[in-house]
Amino acid sequence: MDRESTAPSARRSRRTEGTRVGGRAERVVSAVLSATHEELGRVGYGALRVEDVAARSGVAKTTIYRRWPTKAELVAASLRAANEEQAPPDTGTLRGDLLAVVMGAVRMSQTPTGRGIVRMLQTERADPEVEAISRALRDRSRQVRRALVERGVARGELPADVDTELVLDLIFGAIYARLVHRGEDVSEDYAAAAIDTVLAGARAGAARLPEAPRRP
Amino acid sequence: MDRESTAPSARRSRRTEGTRVGGRAERVVSAVLSATHEELGRVGYGALRVEDVAARSGVAKTTIYRRWPTKAELVAASLRAANEEQAPPDTGTLRGDLLAVVMGAVRMSQTPTGRGIVRMLQTERADPEVEAISRALRDRSRQVRRALVERGVARGELPADVDTELVLDLIFGAIYARLVHRGEDVSEDYAAAAIDTVLAGARAGAARLPEAPRRP
Repeated sequence: MDRESTAPSARRSRRTEGTRVGGRAERVVSAVLSATHEELGRVGYGALRVEDVAARSGVAKTTIYRRWPTKAELVAASLRAANEEQAPPDTGTLRGDLLAVVMGAVRMSQTPTGRGIVRMLQTERADPEVEAISRALRDRSRQVRRALVERGVARGELPADVDTELVLDLIFGAIYARLVHRGEDVSEDYAAAAIDTVLAGARAGAARLPEAPRRP
Repeated sequence: MDRESTAPSARRSRRTEGTRVGGRAERVVSAVLSATHEELGRVGYGALRVEDVAARSGVAKTTIYRRWPTKAELVAASLRAANEEQAPPDTGTLRGDLLAVVMGAVRMSQTPTGRGIVRMLQTERADPEVEAISRALRDRSRQVRRALVERGVARGELPADVDTELVLDLIFGAIYARLVHRGEDVSEDYAAAAIDTVLAGARAGAARLPEAPRRP
C-alpha cells in the first residue's frame, strides 16, 4: 500500500501540469501512450495488439501490462492523454473559444491518426469496450465545453437562463453530423456561421427550456 | 420489354399516392416490406434472413427474390416505403413543419422497430451495405427537409440568403446527437427550443456563409 515515497497527490499534480520530461517512468508512459494512439489510428480498436504497441514504443509488453492490465484501459488512457494535451482555449470571448475548440477537433480529425479514430468511432461502436471508451471521452470533453459556455454566461455574453446543453448539442451536433456522420469537410467559415447562428439565437432568449416542476 | 399493358408512369403515380389496397401484387409488396421492416428492427441487418421475412409475410422466398434480388435491395425498399408513409407536414409555418418532422422521427425511434433500426445505424455502419442504405435514406429525408426550409424562405420566414444546409445540420445534428449518438430522450420542449434557437439566429442573419468566389 505504501511502496512509493512520493505522495500520490503531488505526483499527480506535477503530471497534470504537463511535466512529461520528468523521470524515466514518465518517459515510458508517454512513449507507450503515443504508440497506442498511433496504432489505434492505424488499425482501429478490434485489431490493436499490445505486441505492436510494445514494438513501436520500445517498451516491454510485461511493463505495459503491469501499468494497464487490459487493452481497454491502455486505449482509454492514450485517448485521454491526447485530449489533455490540448489545453482549453481562453480567447476572451465565447465565440473565439468555441471556434478554437471546433477547429482543433477538425484539424485533429484530418491527421492520419485522427482519421483512424473517426473510423473506429463510426464502425466499431458495436464493441462495448469502444462504446465505453467513447462515452468516457465524450463526458470529459463535454465538461470542458460546458465550462467555456458558463464562463461566457458569467461575462454576460449569453442570458443567465440559457440551456448550456442545448447550445452544445446544436453546435457540436452540426459539426459531428458533417465530420463523423457524413464524412464531409468543415471549413472555418462553416464553423463560424454555426456558432454565430446558435449564439444569436441564444442571445435572443430562444435557447431555454421551460422550468421543470420543482420537487417539493 | 413490353410485357405489361399499363404504362409504368401511371402505375407509379398510383402507388406514390398511397393506393396500397389495389391488386394482389401490391398487397404482396406491402406484406413483404412491412415484414422486412419488423425483422430489421428485431435482428438488425447482418442477421436478417430472407427466410424469416418469407415466414413472417407468408410470401414465398422465390417470389421475394424475384422482385428484390439481394437482401440490400429488399431492406432499402422497406426503409424507403416506411419513410414514404409519412407525408411531409404542411402546418403553415416553418417552425411547425420542422417540429412535426422532428417529433415524427422521435416517435418512430421509440417503437420496437425504430429502436432496432437506430441500433443498426449505431452498430452496423462498418457493413458497406448498411452504410449505402443509410446514405440513400439520409439523402431522401434531406431532400424533404430542404424543401420545407425553402418553402419557409419563400414565405419570408427566413432571409433569402440563409444557408439551408447549415440550418438543417444544426437542428437535426442536435436531435441526432441526443437520440442516436447518446441514446437519450428528446422532449417536445427540447425540440422546440432547438428549432427556435436556430430560426432566431437565422432570422438575425447569422446562418449564411461568405459567397464562394465565382468561376470565371
